Amino acid sequence: MTNERFTLAVIGGTGAEGGGLALRWAHAGHKVIIGSRQPEKAEEAAKQLNVLLGSDAIQGMESRAAVAAADIAVLAVPFAAQQATALGLAEVLAGKILVDVTVPLMPPKVSQVQLPASGSCVVDLQQALGDGVRVVSAFQNVSAHKLKDLNYQIACDVLVCANDKAARQSVIQLAGDAGLRGVDAGVLANSTVAESLTSVLIWINRTYKIPDAGISITGLPAV
Amino acid sequence: MTNERFTLAVIGGTGAEGGGLALRWAHAGHKVIIGSRQPEKAEEAAKQLNVLLGSDAIQGMESRAAVAAADIAVLAVPFAAQQATALGLAEVLAGKILVDVTVPLMPPKVSQVQLPASGSCVVDLQQALGDGVRVVSAFQNVSAHKLKDLNYQIACDVLVCANDKAARQSVIQLAGDAGLRGVDAGVLANSTVAESLTSVLIWINRTYKIPDAGISITGLPAV
Repeated sequence: MTNERFTLAVIGGTGAEGGGLALRWAHAGHKVIIGSRQPEKAEEAAKQLNVLLGSDAIQGMESRAAVAAADIAVLAVPFAAQQATALGLAEVLAGKILVDVTVPLMPPKVSQVQLPASGSCVVDLQQALGDGVRVVSAFQNVSAHKLKDLNYQIACDVLVCANDKAARQSVIQLAGDAGLRGVDAGVLANSTVAESLTSVLIWINRTYKIPDAGISITGLPAV
Repeated sequence: MTNERFTLAVIGGTGAEGGGLALRWAHAGHKVIIGSRQPEKAEEAAKQLNVLLGSDAIQGMESRAAVAAADIAVLAVPFAAQQATALGLAEVLAGKILVDVTVPLMPPKVSQVQLPASGSCVVDLQQALGDGVRVVSAFQNVSAHKLKDLNYQIACDVLVCANDKAARQSVIQLAGDAGLRGVDAGVLANSTVAESLTSVLIWINRTYKIPDAGISITGLPAV
């Protein structure tokens, strides 16, 4: 597999999950732009990530400019902000891949599966955005707090779902570039698994008093 | 953990999944009864399993008699027969644990998640049966075809969901007795993960050309 270099806009890169992925992708050689509604917040987040990275490679921009400059956009915002954020960027997302990391957690019962009526908030987003954006579901099950430790080997596979095979392949590559194993998990409707699994992992963390339950797909050939 | 011995009625034990579990439980020392609408089919299935077991321990009975004689019933029938089969046994299930193995696959697209509107066919069954039966969701992700090889170490964890903690614990024990690791995965609503995951595992089997994709929960302490 030849590894492509992408320009990535990480919307919600001011948070732990988005910031950690941004850091790992920049470390792997991608051009990374943190996007936020407030450009000064994006710049501040980029600055802090650059300290960990040891370079000035990560930039910060207002979300629209970030997506406009990118090949692939990554949405890592809370569930409550998911649709509004993405729809506000619909124009600049046109023709691009949007990687949706959203987990539909419904506080306070976050260890109980409570999916939207359709069974998938990513499917809902794809319908809202229309076919002009290739939405990919990924990274919902990766615990955020170790992502910023570049040397930490996170024991969690990334289930990658999308209706477009080429888009799935690009995001499987991005999982690998973040030090994780991406697994082709099928069409976008299969995102139900990843979206519901996070609540089960939270339950398992609490029940077994462990910090970072994850999943591994067994039976796959070694890379 | 002290291991209890149960009398188990396996409804659908004439099929591969139920039969394989029945064999492994009998091998572990439980009293196992295969249940079928037609008692002669149950007896024939028991006879074949007893050949593999090397004893006469497994019995076959009409489903109602099997459940009446058991502490715990296991439902391993196709999705289309799930509700009717369980509701037909409601009277003898009263006060007992019912382990539901049903995967809501909707042929022909079995590699695409298509859950019922509620998000879980096991939750639907619990509602139909009422609180007098403690329904437990488990074993949906275990590939059937290696279960009958008693020495084969299957690489797949069993997500165990139920609203009753004691019922979860009993079924976690049953997973262990079948040579699998049972994991406490929370309330019955969390069954969505196990019910949807089977379609993803089927997709992965086809995409990666492997026979038996499974899952392992990472980060758990060693037993």
